This record gives sequence, structure tokens and C-alpha cells, in this order.
Amino acid sequence: MISYSDHPWMSGLFGDPEIDVRFSADTELAQYLRIEAAWTRALGAISDDAKGEEVAKAIEMASIAPVDLKDGFARDGVPIPALVKALRRLVGPDAEHLVHHGLTSQDVMDTALVLTLTEVLGIVGARLKRLDADLSALTGVHGSAEIMGYTRMQPALTVAVAEVIARWQQSIPGLLTQGTAAIDGLAVIQWGGPVGVREHSKAKELGAVFASNLSLSDPGRAWHTDRSRILSAMNFISQVTVMAGKIGEDLALMSAIGPSQVVLKGGGSSAMPHKVNPVKAEVLITLADRAALLQAASLRAARHEGLRSGQAWTMEWQTVAEACAVAASSTRLAIDLIAEIESFGA
Amino acid sequence: MISYSDHPWMSGLFGDPEIDVRFSADTELAQYLRIEAAWTRALGAISDDAKGEEVAKAIEMASIAPVDLKDGFARDGVPIPALVKALRRLVGPDAEHLVHHGLTSQDVMDTALVLTLTEVLGIVGARLKRLDADLSALTGVHGSAEIMGYTRMQPALTVAVAEVIARWQQSIPGLLTQGTAAIDGLAVIQWGGPVGVREHSKAKELGAVFASNLSLSDPGRAWHTDRSRILSAMNFISQVTVMAGKIGEDLALMSAIGPSQVVLKGGGSSAMPHKVNPVKAEVLITLADRAALLQAASLRAARHEGLRSGQAWTMEWQTVAEACAVAASSTRLAIDLIAEIESFGA
Amino acid sequence: MISYSDHPWMSGLFGDPEIDVRFSADTELAQYLRIEAAWTRALGAISDDAKGEEVAKAIEMASIAPVDLKDGFARDGVPIPALVKALRRLVGPDAEHLVHHGLTSQDVMDTALVLTLTEVLGIVGARLKRLDADLSALTGVHGSAEIMGYTRMQPALTVAVAEVIARWQQSIPGLLTQGTAAIDGLAVIQWGGPVGVREHSKAKELGAVFASNLSLSDPGRAWHTDRSRILSAMNFISQVTVMAGKIGEDLALMSAIGPSQVVLKGGGSSAMPHKVNPVKAEVLITLADRAALLQAASLRAARHEGLRSGQAWTMEWQTVAEACAVAASSTRLAIDLIAEIESFGA
Amino acid sequence: MISYSDHPWMSGLFGDPEIDVRFSADTELAQYLRIEAAWTRALGAISDDAKGEEVAKAIEMASIAPVDLKDGFARDGVPIPALVKALRRLVGPDAEHLVHHGLTSQDVMDTALVLTLTEVLGIVGARLKRLDADLSALTGVHGSAEIMGYTRMQPALTVAVAEVIARWQQSIPGLLTQGTAAIDGLAVIQWGGPVGVREHSKAKELGAVFASNLSLSDPGRAWHTDRSRILSAMNFISQVTVMAGKIGEDLALMSAIGPSQVVLKGGGSSAMPHKVNPVKAEVLITLADRAALLQAASLRAARHEGLRSGQAWTMEWQTVAEACAVAASSTRLAIDLIAEIESFGA
Repeated sequence: MISYSDHPWMSGLFGDPEIDVRFSADTELAQYLRIEAAWTRALGAISDDAKGEEVAKAIEMASIAPVDLKDGFARDGVPIPALVKALRRLVGPDAEHLVHHGLTSQDVMDTALVLTLTEVLGIVGARLKRLDADLSALTGVHGSAEIMGYTRMQPALTVAVAEVIARWQQSIPGLLTQGTAAIDGLAVIQWGGPVGVREHSKAKELGAVFASNLSLSDPGRAWHTDRSRILSAMNFISQVTVMAGKIGEDLALMSAIGPSQVVLKGGGSSAMPHKVNPVKAEVLITLADRAALLQAASLRAARHEGLRSGQAWTMEWQTVAEACAVAASSTRLAIDLIAEIESFGA
Repeated sequence: MISYSDHPWMSGLFGDPEIDVRFSADTELAQYLRIEAAWTRALGAISDDAKGEEVAKAIEMASIAPVDLKDGFARDGVPIPALVKALRRLVGPDAEHLVHHGLTSQDVMDTALVLTLTEVLGIVGARLKRLDADLSALTGVHGSAEIMGYTRMQPALTVAVAEVIARWQQSIPGLLTQGTAAIDGLAVIQWGGPVGVREHSKAKELGAVFASNLSLSDPGRAWHTDRSRILSAMNFISQVTVMAGKIGEDLALMSAIGPSQVVLKGGGSSAMPHKVNPVKAEVLITLADRAALLQAASLRAARHEGLRSGQAWTMEWQTVAEACAVAASSTRLAIDLIAEIESFGA
Repeated sequence: MISYSDHPWMSGLFGDPEIDVRFSADTELAQYLRIEAAWTRALGAISDDAKGEEVAKAIEMASIAPVDLKDGFARDGVPIPALVKALRRLVGPDAEHLVHHGLTSQDVMDTALVLTLTEVLGIVGARLKRLDADLSALTGVHGSAEIMGYTRMQPALTVAVAEVIARWQQSIPGLLTQGTAAIDGLAVIQWGGPVGVREHSKAKELGAVFASNLSLSDPGRAWHTDRSRILSAMNFISQVTVMAGKIGEDLALMSAIGPSQVVLKGGGSSAMPHKVNPVKAEVLITLADRAALLQAASLRAARHEGLRSGQAWTMEWQTVAEACAVAASSTRLAIDLIAEIESFGA
Repeated sequence: MISYSDHPWMSGLFGDPEIDVRFSADTELAQYLRIEAAWTRALGAISDDAKGEEVAKAIEMASIAPVDLKDGFARDGVPIPALVKALRRLVGPDAEHLVHHGLTSQDVMDTALVLTLTEVLGIVGARLKRLDADLSALTGVHGSAEIMGYTRMQPALTVAVAEVIARWQQSIPGLLTQGTAAIDGLAVIQWGGPVGVREHSKAKELGAVFASNLSLSDPGRAWHTDRSRILSAMNFISQVTVMAGKIGEDLALMSAIGPSQVVLKGGGSSAMPHKVNPVKAEVLITLADRAALLQAASLRAARHEGLRSGQAWTMEWQTVAEACAVAASSTRLAIDLIAEIESFGA
């Protein structure tokens, strides 16, 4: 995949440092170590093994570089086997029973995904609130002006600008509720072990302590093949881009119809200096169209065959990370676009 | 679109009379008349016009054939203008102010869609419950048998068959909750009038009576361009097909691996009479893959430009009806497939 | 799937009898019989079995109704096993070695698909030529008028209307070449037998005679799992809808901008009699968007696992038939829409 | 978008330096300068302006860093206006009429895309040939072994391993032809100027010289809104992933069925050291599924409204670059996967 986030010029429009850092290899590795340490502590706690805390600290302070996992990833398709090997080497043979024992790669990576997604959804939610407030402020400035309302792309009847803005805001309260519910549903550990059955004599306590160490809940069983929680997040994300896409499409259309509808500050043309292109409005449409296809990918990626899937899971990583970036850009650019409205209605 | 429902032989596998009747032209026209009559009664009630009831009855008993709307649809892209013209002719010039006055085509058709979707989601929900019960019964019969568990398409460890079935059931309770919430959200009238602003001196009362006449709620304003309610239904529908698709994919894979996993009754081959093809399992996979793309279409169809969109709305009809058929087939075929399991595990 | 073709009112806009008849059960069954008869004749010819011609004639005149295949389809997921059983019963035990022996269901159904697709692509190609001619005629009428040209949805510079129309025509010559190549590639039999290896002592002659009996070529081996020919057809089809979709999108936008761009005859509104909705233009956009998703489905359906796939193949039927209908409607509606242009430019 | 190419560990499996360098900002900027210089030389040549060569050289040697275009991109949505401004400043007011005059941003960027795509398609084609050769070699080693053939995911009849491999190779010759045709079609300049009409008194000569300076052909008119050339490349690319995806799916399934089918070297499990996961096979499936959705995006991105589109064009960049990366990874991983086959058939 080609990245826009660290592209020297495309990052000017598409870059989103607040999101990118959360999907960075450094952040991900730090989460893996945090999760492995939480597991080690839980193993120590339920077996009254005093070494647990010491080993957990060693895991937390392990100096493993992301690039150390490259060969392992190339071979295994996941970074965890190489990481576990390095950690076991670090703590030595006497303590290696306290490292990752009873976990599987997907337990670590899904729990890390949960931690990331709850943060990203929180950021998107905060931007949604900001956008909603900005739209209310826009109504304060332009709401009482009159504007020709279009239905089926034809002039229909005159309405107040406030009516146009109200349509942009209409789905936001429901989206905020949906986002909060998705975050709540995600705040759980993933733990099942190799085939997802939590084979351990003290499984209940172990799950509870592991979850508590990460400030998450224990849903009581693994959800390796039940991706409902991820789909709730993706449903939220894709609907956010529909909302922002409408703002973009409406403003692009209104700016095409002319200044009696809207005047935007915007992008320049290399050949026609008099033109102002509705760049951010156009980008919002493309992001919504991409998010729709990413949602199709999410649904495909949500069908995990057997007791654990490699293909669906691999597809999920690619899809979820990109969808998060798209939703975050959508809300950010919508906020910026609103600020570029110079006149609205007559 | 080519129909499978009334195809002489494909209907044997894909046909679903319980769903088809709900998307039939006859049903749709009957709903339009019911909605127009409810509106006429509401207009009569708030204006103390005694003729309201009489005109409403005339609308309900109007003998309009679906085919009468064909020329109008070809011209207008919606059947309502032709219907309204016919109804106004029927009631005469003295009563035509009681017919459709203050409504727009989308008010009638969205309200009809709401009535249809709540029924269809109810049917899918009932099938989900039936599938869940059948899976529990299957656990009763085969649950304690042992089976080799597969992760990443490789034999991993032996588990109880109950564990395999538990994964098929895992998302069902959440889906049932999601389906009920989608139905609740849909139980509302659509009313906004031509540009969606409910231009009427007694808009509040009119909305309330109109809704009450149809046993629906009044959300207080039009949702012409906010398709969140439809998307909630589509999210439910697409996730149902993921769940059923996993059952299909797992059974197809297990039947490929061999009788130590599963033995199915199934379809015959024209050339190899000894073979039993996992037909319904294969179809469940295709339905899930189609539903994923229909969800992408739904998201595209949810971005309605301006005060009302023609293009997005037209795309929505096509998408939602087909998605409903896919989800209904998914649940029906999953129930049938489960009944074809002859042996499960060792 | 919900059909629009035989819908009492939707058929007014979406119905396409010329295409529908080619995907009807009657046509399909007639093709199956024709193909089975061609095979029987080929078997007779290479084995000097005089009964071949007689049995072939019996197959051609067999009175099997489409509905007779319903139970078989429900069980087998394909209609051919039930058809073969009926044909063997018809010709009796002494001749049944001349019926379907050495074929598999997919041989029959793929060959039937090839016959259908070449006809449908021919129809779409003919409509493309008609559209191209109509666009040239439109240039004759309006081409020298001036019109404000839009780039990035903003007024840029004035151009001749001929330039706008030239862009609509630009891809048509290439599409016609592509369509012809797709038809040429498709004009082949499918024959491989149960596992696709043409197990027969006189395979070469048998293939040649079978192909010749159907006026097709023999590609020399089965293409059960190589769907390149179908994808060439689908590439053509989806690109046709892009071309027609641009005409729709441009005309919808130009009609929104106002009469200095274009004036269309079009559809009426139930609430605003003064409005003319660009119905066909809007529908062309939705058809292009649907075709894009159908192309994704085609690609998914083109990956056939093993020596023959059930799931991918089943998905292919659904996709290809619908894509054909979409492309046919696109070209038909584009022709109709062009005729609705009342004024173009200043 | 999150990049895998420069990800510290994911690049181990997904990284593709040969492709990445071609989509890097440095390469892109170098192409822009090369194209602007070619244009300047062409302007100089047709106007007998001796300064042309000198200015062209100044453009070629301009020390502009990719990051210098960031603010411009954020404002304009394209990097060219900022680049042109910098170049004009560089050459001074007396020469600025020789810089970009008569071009539009899309002329430069589409021509750069053409240069990139022809190289990338060449790389993918070379990998296809290598894969084909490796498959032939594999037949040399294992082809005569027997293996149970599967149809509709069920054991059917025994075939030679050569038959399985032949199906993997079957579409490759056609793909190579298709790839070459796509490259040939792409080897053209884009030139139209602001509204695509090549407004210049010596347009024909100018186009010819500009094309010749870049070793490309001149198609005679702009193709700003006719993306057929890009779609031909995308058709090729998506079909390549279908071919490679089948190899992956078949090997994943065969490895699931057991060692009588195939034994792969592969990836390890963090919890079950005895397991070998078919990592590359799984990844090939996900790449094919992603490519299918990217093809849907390409078709959406191919409908350019008006005389030039911002939204469709922006979507095209994102889609084409990612699709190239997916196709390149597909062919590379298929080659690697084939080398991991330890035993094949009995």
C-alpha cells in the first residue's frame, strides 16, 4: 500500500498525525509488550508465582526494535512468534513459562487492535462533535439567508440556509451514539489460546486478571471468529464518511451552480488563475466512495473460517487501518471545508 | 435484474415466497393507497373537513392496477405522480385538495419502504432464532463428539464439536438485538413535503395524526437525505449473511477434508453419481460475498445530494430489496443446511 | 433477486425485452437441449453409431418444461442432472450411452452461457453504434453553439458544444473493438468432462465435431477454472456503463446549472408540477455505480478453486446476467436521454 | 493510507522495493520535471525560440524538494501549480512563457502516470513469465505424480499433478498479451490544456514534438475524461491477481486436506510449533479480494464529469497505485509460494 501520511506533499492534504501515530509500528510494538506483560502478571497472579512481576517488567522494558520482527513476519505472516521468541530468550529458560504461555498470536494482536480502535473512534467522535458545533455556528452566521433548494438536482423551492445545514447535521447525534456504543463493545480483551477454548484450569480468574491489568473487560470467551465488534466500529466509520461525503457533494454542486448558492475559498489551477477548485469537497466524495468499498472488504474480512482464519484476519488489518484513516480525514477535512465557506445563499 | 424468485427451476433453491410477496408490485401499490388514505384522513382531521373519511375510503378501494403506473414510471422515474393523478381524477375536483396535498413522492415511498422493511427484518429475525435453536439441538446430538480443530486452514488441536457449533452461534444474540433496534428505528413515517420542510400551519398535529393512522411514530422532521435508518437495517442484514456464510464456508471446508470432519447430504453431479456436492454451503458463501458488495452499494446509495436525491434514492431501492432477499435466503438455507448434517466429528 | 424486467411499472423504465428473453428459462432450456443434441451427434459420429442422429432429434424435440427441473435444481444446485435423467429415460436404456456421456454440467451450462453472451454483447454493440450515430447527429444540430465548459465542477472557459459531445463519444470506437474481441474470444465450446481432462480416446475429434455442430470453435481444452473469456466480456460491459454514466452525470450536472447549459425533457414531480427531473440521467449514474460493484463480483467469481468450483460458478451466473442487463439498459437509456435534449448551450 | 512498504516488519512480506520506488515522491517529481522540460523544449522548437533548450535544462536541474510542494498540494489538491510557480520564479520573467504555458496539471500528472504504469506493467509481466517458467519446472518435478482431483470442494477423480499445474498456467499467455496491449495503449502523452481542446495555433506540431521528446506517441487529442487506457491496465492487473489468487486458494485448500495433496514449507504459530501455516497462500487470496474491490474503485474513478474531474481523478491516483502494488505482490508471492512446495500428490 502506498502511504499518503508520510508523503512529502500529499500529507499536506491527506496526512493525519493524530491517527498515524496510533497505527505506527512503534505504537503497535509497545502495545504488544504491554499486553504480553499484562498476561505474564496474570499468569504470575493466579499461580502465586512471585517471578511474574519481575518478568512482566522485563517484558515492558525489553529493547526490541520493530525491525527485529521483519524476518519473523516474512515467515509467519504475524509478528508475534518472533517477538515471543525474543522475549523468552530475554527472560531465560526458568521464566519462559511465564511468557505468552496459553496465548496465541491473535489474542495479542486483537487486544492491541481493540486498544487502538477505541482511541481512534474517540478521535473521530471528538471531530464529529467539533464539526457539529461548527455547523451550528455556521447557521448562526448564514442560517437566515435564503437559498434555492434543489431536489433531484433541479431548482425546487427557496428555503432558509439553516435548512441546508440542518440536513448536514441530521445524522450526527445518532452517529455519536453509535460511536460510543462501538467503543463500549470494543473495550474487551481477546483471549482464547491456540484453538480459542481457553484451555486452563483457572481460565475464569486468568481472564479476569488479564483484562483488569489492561483496564478492559473480559467477555468470558474468545471472539477469534466473531468479528461483530470490529464490524460495529466499521459501520460507524463508514456512516461517518457518508455524512461528510454529503457535505462535500452538496458544496461541490452548489459551487458549480454558482455564487447565489455558495462561494468557497479553495484550490488553485495551474492554467486558470481565476478558478477556485472545491478541492476538499471533492476529496470528501472520494473518501466516502472509498469507505463504501472498504466496508465491503470488512464484511469479507469478517467471515473467519474454522477456529481461526489467516486470510480473513490478514485482510481485516489492511481494511480497518485504512478505514480509520479515511474516517479521520473525512471529519478533519469537513471541518476545514466548512471554514472555507465565504458566502452561503443570497 | 434477472429474478430467481419466479424462475421455474432456480426458485427451487433461491425462491422465497415469504419475502417476494412483500416486494411485489401488488403489495407496494396497496401500501401506497394505505399511506395516501392515512394522509387524507390526517388532512381531514386537522382541518375538520368531514369529507376526509369518505375520500380516504375511496382511495383505499380505488381499483388501480400496478400496470396503470407503467407509463408514469417510465416518464417520472417514480410511480407516485401517476397514482396521484388517478386518485384525484377518482375523487373529483371538489376533493382533490385532500389527496396527497403537502406530500411528495418520497414521503409515500419511504413510508412504504419502512412498512416493508420492518416486516422483512422480522422474518429474518425469526429465522435467526430458528437457526439458533436448531444449532443448539445439533449440539445436543453431536456436541460431545471430538473433531480436529483447524486454524489458518491447518489441523491444530482436537476440540469438542460443541465448540465448532458455539462459534456459529456466537454472533446470533447480538444480531437479534441489532435487528430489533433496526426495526424500532424504522417504525416512523417519512414526511417532509416537496423540499422536506413540512410547510404547513399545523405541521405538528398533521405529522402526529398521519403517523398514528399508520401505527408508526413521527420523528418530528423529514429524513429524506438522512438514510441512517436504512443503513441500520442494511448493517444488520449484511452481518447476518456473514454469520450464515461462515457456517457455509466451514461446512464446505470440513466436507472437503473428509468424513472425520463432517458428512453432508447434498447435491448430485451429472457425471459422478458417487459425489455429494455441498450445494447449500457453497450458496451461503456466494450470498455473503454478494451482501458485502450490496452493503457498499447501500453506503453509496445513502449519500443523497441536495434536499432530495434521485440517483441515490433509485440506487437504494435496487440495493435494499436485493439485500433483503439475500439475507432471507441466507438464513433459510443455513437452517436447511444444518439439517443435512449426517455425521459431525468422530 | 427482485426483477425489474417483468415488474408491472418498473419495466416501463428498466425493462428490456430484447435482453430478458435471452436470459429466460425457456431460452436456457432450449440451449441445453441444443447442446446435448450436438454432443449426442458428436458421440454418434466418432463411434459410427447410426443411432446418434435419431437420439439427437429426440433430445431436440423432448417436451421438458423448465419447471420439471425445479426439484433437481433445489437438490443439485444445477439443472443438468435432472435434465440428463429425463433425457435418458426418454431415449431408453439402449441409447442412454449417447446422452451426456463424457460431459459434465458445467460443460453444458458454460457453452450455453457462451451462446447467450455473444448475442447479448452483439446487442449492446449495436446500441453503442446507434448511440454514437445519434451523438454525431446531435453535434450536427447543436455542435457549433457555445457553452461554458466546467473543470473540477467550476466554470472554466467557453467551448463549442461539439467538444462536450466529442468527449461522450471518445471511448466508443475502442469499446466497439473491445466488444468484438470479447465476442470472438467467447465463440468456443466448453468441454472437459467431470474433472476437465477430456478423458476420451478420440478427444480431439469429439471436441472438433461437438464444436462444429454448434458453429463454435474448440479451444482444445476445458476452461472450467479459467474465466478469462467471461472477464473480457465483463470488462467490456462495465466500461460501457462508465461511458453512458458520464453522459448521465454530465447532463444531470448541466441541467442543475441551468438552461444556459442544457434543457431536458424529463420526468414530473408529484408535488412540483413546474419541475422536470433528469430521470434517465440519474438512472445512468446508478447503473454505472452498480456495474462497478458487479465487476468486483465478477472478479471474485472468476477465482474457481480446484478442478471445478461450485461457489464461484454460482456467483458468476448471478453476476453476469445482471451485468448484461445493466449494460443493455445503460445503452438504451443513453439513446433515449440524448433524444430528450431540447436545447444545448447558448 | 497506511503503508506496508516501509513498515519495519510488514515490509518483510508485503514490501516491494521495485514497485515502491516507482510510486515514490522523488520519482514522481523527477517525472514532472522531465515532462515540463519536454514541453518547454517543444514550445521552443515550434516557436524557434532559442531559449527553449536552456530553460528546459534549468527545469531538469531545478533543485526542488518534494516537501516544497506540500503547502501547494494542501491548497490546490495537486502539486503542479506550486511546482510551476517555483519553476517560473527560477527561470525569471523573460522565460516564464516557456514554462507550462498551454499545459494543465492533469496533462503533466497523467503523462507521469503513463510513464510509471508502463514500467510497473512491465515488471508485473516479467514476474508473470517467471511464474510461468517456475510452474513448468514444477511440472517437470511433480507433474507425473497422481493426486485426487477436487470439484465443488469434493474428491472427484484422480488426475496427474500436471493437470493441476496446467490450470494455474492456463490464463498466463492471455494475460501476457493483455499486459503488452495495455502497455502499448498507455505509451501516449496526455495533452489538452485547461479545458482539453489543445488551444494552440500549431497544436499538431506541438503535440508531436512533446510526445517525441518523451519517446511517447501523440494520440491526437486529450483523454482527460476518457480513462480507457487506465482501465485496460487495471483490467490486466485485477486479472493477474485472480490467477495468483487461485494458486493461493488451491494450495491453502490442498494443504488443509492433507499431505496426500501437498506439503508446504510455511509460517510458524506462536502457540503450536508443530503447525505450518500457508501464509503466502492466504495472502494471495486477500490480495485477489482487495484487487476486486480496487477494480470497482477504478471503474468509479473512470467516470470523469465535465471537461475535467477533480473527484474521479483524485480517486484514480489512490486506486491505481494501490492496485499496482497488489498485482506486483501477487506475482512475487506466487513465485515464492511455488518454491515452498515440498511435496505434491502421492
